Amino acid sequence: MPELNYSQDPSRPELSELIVLKDAPFNAEARQTDLVKNYITPLPYFFCRSHGPIPDLNDTHSITIKGLGVRNRECHYTVKDLKEKFKKHHVMMVMQCAGNRRDGLHRVKDTKGVIWGAGAIGNAVYGGCRLKDVLESAGIDTKLCNIGQLHVAFESVEQCEEDKCYGSSIPLSKALDEFGDVLLAYEMNHEPLTRDHGHPIRVVVPGYIGARSVKFLKTITIQDDESTSYFQRLDYKILPEHVENDEQASKYWGKIPSIGEYNVQSYVCSPPDGQNKEAAQNVQVQGYAVSGGGRAIQRVDVSGDDGKTWVEAQLYQPSAEKKESVHTWGWCLWRATINTKRRTRIVSRAVDTAGNIQQEYPVWNYRGVLNNSWRTVEKEQNSVL
Amino acid sequence: MPELNYSQDPSRPELSELIVLKDAPFNAEARQTDLVKNYITPLPYFFCRSHGPIPDLNDTHSITIKGLGVRNRECHYTVKDLKEKFKKHHVMMVMQCAGNRRDGLHRVKDTKGVIWGAGAIGNAVYGGCRLKDVLESAGIDTKLCNIGQLHVAFESVEQCEEDKCYGSSIPLSKALDEFGDVLLAYEMNHEPLTRDHGHPIRVVVPGYIGARSVKFLKTITIQDDESTSYFQRLDYKILPEHVENDEQASKYWGKIPSIGEYNVQSYVCSPPDGQNKEAAQNVQVQGYAVSGGGRAIQRVDVSGDDGKTWVEAQLYQPSAEKKESVHTWGWCLWRATINTKRRTRIVSRAVDTAGNIQQEYPVWNYRGVLNNSWRTVEKEQNSVL
Repeated sequence: MPELNYSQDPSRPELSELIVLKDAPFNAEARQTDLVKNYITPLPYFFCRSHGPIPDLNDTHSITIKGLGVRNRECHYTVKDLKEKFKKHHVMMVMQCAGNRRDGLHRVKDTKGVIWGAGAIGNAVYGGCRLKDVLESAGIDTKLCNIGQLHVAFESVEQCEEDKCYGSSIPLSKALDEFGDVLLAYEMNHEPLTRDHGHPIRVVVPGYIGARSVKFLKTITIQDDESTSYFQRLDYKILPEHVENDEQASKYWGKIPSIGEYNVQSYVCSPPDGQNKEAAQNVQVQGYAVSGGGRAIQRVDVSGDDGKTWVEAQLYQPSAEKKESVHTWGWCLWRATINTKRRTRIVSRAVDTAGNIQQEYPVWNYRGVLNNSWRTVEKEQNSVL
Repeated sequence: MPELNYSQDPSRPELSELIVLKDAPFNAEARQTDLVKNYITPLPYFFCRSHGPIPDLNDTHSITIKGLGVRNRECHYTVKDLKEKFKKHHVMMVMQCAGNRRDGLHRVKDTKGVIWGAGAIGNAVYGGCRLKDVLESAGIDTKLCNIGQLHVAFESVEQCEEDKCYGSSIPLSKALDEFGDVLLAYEMNHEPLTRDHGHPIRVVVPGYIGARSVKFLKTITIQDDESTSYFQRLDYKILPEHVENDEQASKYWGKIPSIGEYNVQSYVCSPPDGQNKEAAQNVQVQGYAVSGGGRAIQRVDVSGDDGKTWVEAQLYQPSAEKKESVHTWGWCLWRATINTKRRTRIVSRAVDTAGNIQQEYPVWNYRGVLNNSWRTVEKEQNSVL
């Protein structure tokens, strides 16, 4: 494994509002109070999650498509080709790291990974060509009888410590789904992708954890099985509670499905972390909510008395109302006015359209993924600040 | 509204193992211990949910397809046509009433509806033609640009008290999804549908609540909006906790999405209801688990000490392993060996592949739908028997 060199990483003067958790590789999250300021998260408030040095590529960068069903076994498109030869589509969607809110699990017991707060999430408008269109142009026939068993693996230019490069995969059926909205994106919020967000081209997979939205895309392979990458096979899985270290985990990785869609989630962003030191009337509370797989949020309840009583929040979730897509990929921002007790954390719990609801207490897992409990502490502790 | 006459309902000597909750309309559920005896639930153990007198139809019964995009505005198929003209497909899937486990919510506060226990669920192999094939044959073009905004409404021959007939709808995108597996079924477990299960033809919608799988199908309509049926608009929705009666509900129906996919669920079936009067070592526990929308179950935890410690169950979920479909529509039967405390209810909690997990305490809703809490009692009560 060559030593990783971060000297060519971009300087980041425009990201001074982010909370930097790690400099190299660069990992930084949003302040929660910034997240609820805009429905579309501006770049200065958008979390960055990298696994290695940030590549410096341009539009002459070429993507290789290969594997099962690809014409002539292999074909190539430069980023310029992708921009010129395929129709441009926009998808408004949440990008959320599987480790968002890992801190809540880490407080229970040590987890492995960057200790994200609730700011490893954002809502963006990505622009690019549909992966479906590109695959069809490369010869993939959507009438293939075994689409349901195949996968699309992505490899990145990004070098990293865990594997030769960053990699991941999604089911081919998601890629070819007319309503799956998977893009090869070259724009974010109507500007060219920045290097920190995957310039010049990244996959964006709506409704899935961010780990599947591979940046600095290099190779697309249609194959029989999931990606063999570390990040698909030995990471981003929900280990059982009793698995507490790498050695125990090594017996489990092969038995547990890799995460695709994420679960129902919400968080109180304002007041920050739901903190409320004094009893008060008519406290204005704001936060976000989202669910995976395109499921919309149907309700958010907010409590200022430790879950004894709940107030229904007002939801702002335009993508669920406009019905432009069959799925809701964008998030829901919400607000509520509540009364609070002294030294009681304000909490929220969201319900998605499938009736999934956030759990009360965290159920710990070693990798600290998909934490969505509405309490931020263990059962034995009090929920006071 | 004509008076409903139940005198022509079938006699049901073969259903003597079911627990009858209501004679007319006929509503009966499985004993929990019967549910875990077979991976494919035999008919004598399969719950029956009807809304009115059971029609008596045969293969000359004709289905009308009409609405947006249908050739000549309307076309007709007899059941015989459907059997002869379209390829037969099989789908193994869970049929679950949205009211399964309503009793858990009813114990918190009165709910409206049949007070089902945990037996309003079963796992069957349905046989029939794909709705997609039939719609395409009727002229529906899967390349229609607005598929994402359209709905398929179903009307039944079944008369009922709440509306002129039973009716419901699903998004057209679900009906046309290559992997949606929606059938017009005429067989159940490789036998002709029985009258109680919708003879001669019913819709089956995998991953969705049973209410969408309309029996005794009469009309299919492609339309701009959801079905206007009582059962789509004024029922089968998760009302907020503070809505406690029909009058309050009347202000909410229009604001709340109708349920399609259901949430993550599991239940201890053996010992029955998880009852365990004495402390014991090595108790054999069995139950079921399932999640909506084709999400597989990735883990079931079982506890004999009121949730203090959990044992990972062994899962039996062949449809998740075979990967014949991209979705897992069948259920998961599980077993575990645990130690139990005296007078402590054995409980289980399931995690689906999207990381959704059952909530701890029930969150009450007036219609008592989609209850999936792992405790069966309110917060203020003890969980002892």
